[in-house]
Amino acid sequence: MTAFADGYDPGPQIAHCGAINLGTKDLATSLHFFGDLLGMEIVHREGSTAYLRGYQELAHHSLVLTEQPESVVNSYSFRVRRPQDVELFAAEFERQEIETVEVPAGAEVGRGTAVRFLVPGSGHPFELYYDIDKPGAPEEISSKLPSNSSRRRGLGVRRIDHFNVQTSRETINQAEGWVRENLGFRRREYALHRDDTTVLASWMSVTPQVHDLAMVANSFGKTAQLHHVAFNLENLSDVLTAADVLRDYDVTFDLGPGKHGIGQAMYLYVLDPGSGHRVEIYAGGYLIFEPDWEPIKWEREAFPDGLTWYGDPFVFGGDARSLGTTPSAVL
Amino acid sequence: MTAFADGYDPGPQIAHCGAINLGTKDLATSLHFFGDLLGMEIVHREGSTAYLRGYQELAHHSLVLTEQPESVVNSYSFRVRRPQDVELFAAEFERQEIETVEVPAGAEVGRGTAVRFLVPGSGHPFELYYDIDKPGAPEEISSKLPSNSSRRRGLGVRRIDHFNVQTSRETINQAEGWVRENLGFRRREYALHRDDTTVLASWMSVTPQVHDLAMVANSFGKTAQLHHVAFNLENLSDVLTAADVLRDYDVTFDLGPGKHGIGQAMYLYVLDPGSGHRVEIYAGGYLIFEPDWEPIKWEREAFPDGLTWYGDPFVFGGDARSLGTTPSAVL
Amino acid sequence: MTAFADGYDPGPQIAHCGAINLGTKDLATSLHFFGDLLGMEIVHREGSTAYLRGYQELAHHSLVLTEQPESVVNSYSFRVRRPQDVELFAAEFERQEIETVEVPAGAEVGRGTAVRFLVPGSGHPFELYYDIDKPGAPEEISSKLPSNSSRRRGLGVRRIDHFNVQTSRETINQAEGWVRENLGFRRREYALHRDDTTVLASWMSVTPQVHDLAMVANSFGKTAQLHHVAFNLENLSDVLTAADVLRDYDVTFDLGPGKHGIGQAMYLYVLDPGSGHRVEIYAGGYLIFEPDWEPIKWEREAFPDGLTWYGDPFVFGGDARSLGTTPSAVL
Amino acid sequence: MTAFADGYDPGPQIAHCGAINLGTKDLATSLHFFGDLLGMEIVHREGSTAYLRGYQELAHHSLVLTEQPESVVNSYSFRVRRPQDVELFAAEFERQEIETVEVPAGAEVGRGTAVRFLVPGSGHPFELYYDIDKPGAPEEISSKLPSNSSRRRGLGVRRIDHFNVQTSRETINQAEGWVRENLGFRRREYALHRDDTTVLASWMSVTPQVHDLAMVANSFGKTAQLHHVAFNLENLSDVLTAADVLRDYDVTFDLGPGKHGIGQAMYLYVLDPGSGHRVEIYAGGYLIFEPDWEPIKWEREAFPDGLTWYGDPFVFGGDARSLGTTPSAVL
Repeated sequence: MTAFADGYDPGPQIAHCGAINLGTKDLATSLHFFGDLLGMEIVHREGSTAYLRGYQELAHHSLVLTEQPESVVNSYSFRVRRPQDVELFAAEFERQEIETVEVPAGAEVGRGTAVRFLVPGSGHPFELYYDIDKPGAPEEISSKLPSNSSRRRGLGVRRIDHFNVQTSRETINQAEGWVRENLGFRRREYALHRDDTTVLASWMSVTPQVHDLAMVANSFGKTAQLHHVAFNLENLSDVLTAADVLRDYDVTFDLGPGKHGIGQAMYLYVLDPGSGHRVEIYAGGYLIFEPDWEPIKWEREAFPDGLTWYGDPFVFGGDARSLGTTPSAVL
Repeated sequence: MTAFADGYDPGPQIAHCGAINLGTKDLATSLHFFGDLLGMEIVHREGSTAYLRGYQELAHHSLVLTEQPESVVNSYSFRVRRPQDVELFAAEFERQEIETVEVPAGAEVGRGTAVRFLVPGSGHPFELYYDIDKPGAPEEISSKLPSNSSRRRGLGVRRIDHFNVQTSRETINQAEGWVRENLGFRRREYALHRDDTTVLASWMSVTPQVHDLAMVANSFGKTAQLHHVAFNLENLSDVLTAADVLRDYDVTFDLGPGKHGIGQAMYLYVLDPGSGHRVEIYAGGYLIFEPDWEPIKWEREAFPDGLTWYGDPFVFGGDARSLGTTPSAVL
Repeated sequence: MTAFADGYDPGPQIAHCGAINLGTKDLATSLHFFGDLLGMEIVHREGSTAYLRGYQELAHHSLVLTEQPESVVNSYSFRVRRPQDVELFAAEFERQEIETVEVPAGAEVGRGTAVRFLVPGSGHPFELYYDIDKPGAPEEISSKLPSNSSRRRGLGVRRIDHFNVQTSRETINQAEGWVRENLGFRRREYALHRDDTTVLASWMSVTPQVHDLAMVANSFGKTAQLHHVAFNLENLSDVLTAADVLRDYDVTFDLGPGKHGIGQAMYLYVLDPGSGHRVEIYAGGYLIFEPDWEPIKWEREAFPDGLTWYGDPFVFGGDARSLGTTPSAVL
Repeated sequence: MTAFADGYDPGPQIAHCGAINLGTKDLATSLHFFGDLLGMEIVHREGSTAYLRGYQELAHHSLVLTEQPESVVNSYSFRVRRPQDVELFAAEFERQEIETVEVPAGAEVGRGTAVRFLVPGSGHPFELYYDIDKPGAPEEISSKLPSNSSRRRGLGVRRIDHFNVQTSRETINQAEGWVRENLGFRRREYALHRDDTTVLASWMSVTPQVHDLAMVANSFGKTAQLHHVAFNLENLSDVLTAADVLRDYDVTFDLGPGKHGIGQAMYLYVLDPGSGHRVEIYAGGYLIFEPDWEPIKWEREAFPDGLTWYGDPFVFGGDARSLGTTPSAVL
């Protein structure tokens, strides 16, 4: 990055959250939700698969919808910093005797070769890739702003924001530790179980966002679960508008709108009516630029403030709401 | 950052915009503006100097106000990634025969040793430091949110955002090239003069922000100028509220509110009534996570859209407004 | 109003919600809440009484805080259309054998003679007045906008909005009918008990607002209760900012933020820490200009949507929250 | 309105702004603008005429688009308070020897009989009606909220707000005085020419809005001009979103976004790409409930603050922008 860095190799790194591949039993309904309502561009559609992106994403897609019998998450994908990082990561995983699968270029349209593996402990299917096409949008939705791939439409989803995944209490420390040590995720905020040892929830990032990836203990002991995938809107007020509009459709509200103390962002959790996966409509939050950020530990008595600073409250452990998850695919 | 990075040294790096030290002829008026109106915390005051920060900054200060006869910028400070980077940068500058000054710890209260130098070409006094205190706020303004140093107050400045500096057409290519090559700033968006060679304006960052530092050619051939320093608010609507309130005081509006096409953020430029320095009240914008970001080049005909997407228009070169700058101090 | 109306007398009419006189056990704390936090102007203070108004109110006050042993509501005041309407109303009340009290000019500072009476059935102490001073604000908070009495400050309360009062199920039909027939309030939206006869809640107005006055059945059979007094902010986003800031103080949140389906306005219910009275921070809503407005009747199954369109939910009848009220004074 | 009003007749009154009938040379383009972009419902379409309404309007239409060779305003319509007011107004106009035309029921689909006349002096074609259908919306856009005729869509126009019309300096005092004396409009804010006698601009209303009707002197001596028709959005932030989206289409921005000091509302003036008529995207503002409102007179030096409190500035008399108008039809 700087003139003196030549000759050094920082090792492979994750650049950012890339895409999620959601299985859905009802593609048409999911497309209506993500496309017509949330305003995402349907970049490509082929057979039972559709590729979508937000209006500020130049890459080919951040969401893949695959019509299939089970509403599972097929993959959580991350983009790496450099072309060689895909292979460097793969080599390291093999060194650790983690089973990997090479996903050939084009398996997701527009994407190059990826390495696929299950996160040790949690079993979430992660994929790492570097090459991704950056197609222009059709003229009828193209933007005059070169930093937009298309015009703002619908409820204004501009990009993917983060994944929140769950695994069992027995496996979460292994999984959370592994992604921090091996993928470069840094803890930004977290809470522990009463034993003060087991992770209850951990918000982690490789970028200045408070979280690109959150890991939360699953109350029912299930591994490889999706709690939600978040999509980013420009303003807190956009979340209110989304709530207003989605409330008037047959979209199930899970929770919100409200503001998390953790991350200080506005949330609205709804269920994609096609797949049942939980989707967070998300805006705001603070950014962490400090190189010596001290992870914020939430003690039990303050934790409710962290979950819900204001708005429709997140009831942790005491309510049927907000506990549903959907499983992920295997290797 | 990752498990394989051991033994490698990426070289010294800038982490983020740290602070600006503004000379003001009227400290009390500047403090009223930044403290009472914009809502920044006055962390420390000693003689003719005051240290301020936004409510989401944990570090000791991001703004220093120094009462002095000339309203010049005393320094533009950046925090580096690692403790050793201060010395590594200093060594490199000396290798390049750039004159440096060691600024001792405490010269700015709460800050460790810094290296000071003038940017080759432009002459802007930059300071690089790592150590900075992170004091808690007094109880009467402390926040329940550990990611806030204090409660949101006044118009809600939460942190420093970026510097926009100007230098002459003759020197801008040298200066802009130097900060990119030596400090790791990457061009995100830019425009060239009619000669298609000389930089007209360049928006650069070391973080995912579109700019931590902008360099713009000065219409009157002056070097070492401050165009503005920007402070960040949470929402676009907060900029409107700020406009509403500041308009009702004797605060001079320079431009805005409006939205830049470049960076897609909301702007409001006002003049600190104490010092005359231009301050941008800033919110929103897009983030760049892509490792292979292609800098956006603004051609002449589209440039007005880039300067003003909507709102009170930035008139580039054709109006007395928005051309004023204030000079910077020397080494 | 028009050229042909001469010689006709429409009879006495209520013009708008004027002011509420709240008893508080802790005036200093109530003043901090309404003045420093909500941003209301303290127009006058004399002994144990303070008079406040929002920044868009030209009249002397819309809130009176009286330090006294009991946190009761001393009066709900309405301004009438014409000077003679005070007497005309008084004469009519006497004709109906309703006991009235003449409140002399100056009993509330800045206000002329008023007639005081208890609403038949509910027992709420209403006062009707016409004359009210319109003092300018002190120069240090005066606004350049002649439609503002002072600058926007604090969380931006600009005016009183409405009263929501409760009485017993046995008395509500009498009281609600009486204010409609005698004070000119029109039903805008309403819900009935299971008997389809007894009013559960009725939102009424004399202005195009959906309600200047709401009457709701009290779950515990109490009469003369205040559910809340609402103060108006400019934007939905201002309610979020208020929530953000108040959450960081020792202000008790009762409910919200959220949006009512009834009236379509944003709400946040908090308790004045001085008096315990419930205060609604309120913005938005639709206006009714149609002369033939058909009152909207909320059936039981849709009622939850009416109470909470989105946000922290109003639990009607099933929760300890949002059921507290404070009593009103007697004649 | 109250129990004592029996037997009295207040005379005919205007209730509110009803609808505007805009001639357009290009109906398809106008429909794309008002329907697809602004989000209005196309309630009925028949031949070269289309009827639209906002999502919070229960009446049949507030906008009629008529394809015709000239982009003139065919009528400015107001709804009256009572069925008999149409005839009462007509009788009074005849008494004043003002030529009137009876517009039969159904001439505008869904509307009853109206009286049409030209405003004395200005020549604007006004129509007054009472009867108007209130059809439900098709199920695919219907709202769960009974106070909405359809779901919020597009940029969220919820209702018509006001008309701003222009006439010559020679005729404005006659016209402005006539509508105040005969139609019940009250001056809320106004400015006079240097002669301190001739109206420069007058903002008038029959409702608590600051203006349902504005009359402004035309710089080119033209009578019967439309300056703009305004449509109302829920929030100031919605105006920003509208600016963001419309800027990315081939919609001409005339002025804004910004905030008027007069009325304190957010504005964005754009030209309907089909007809060229100026349309104001409008939100916010204060309401006047006081029966003794003193009209605010804007003196010359303060008038710029009144026109533009903040944002893209309204340049009165000094700029080609914002002076264009479109003519109105004759009787």
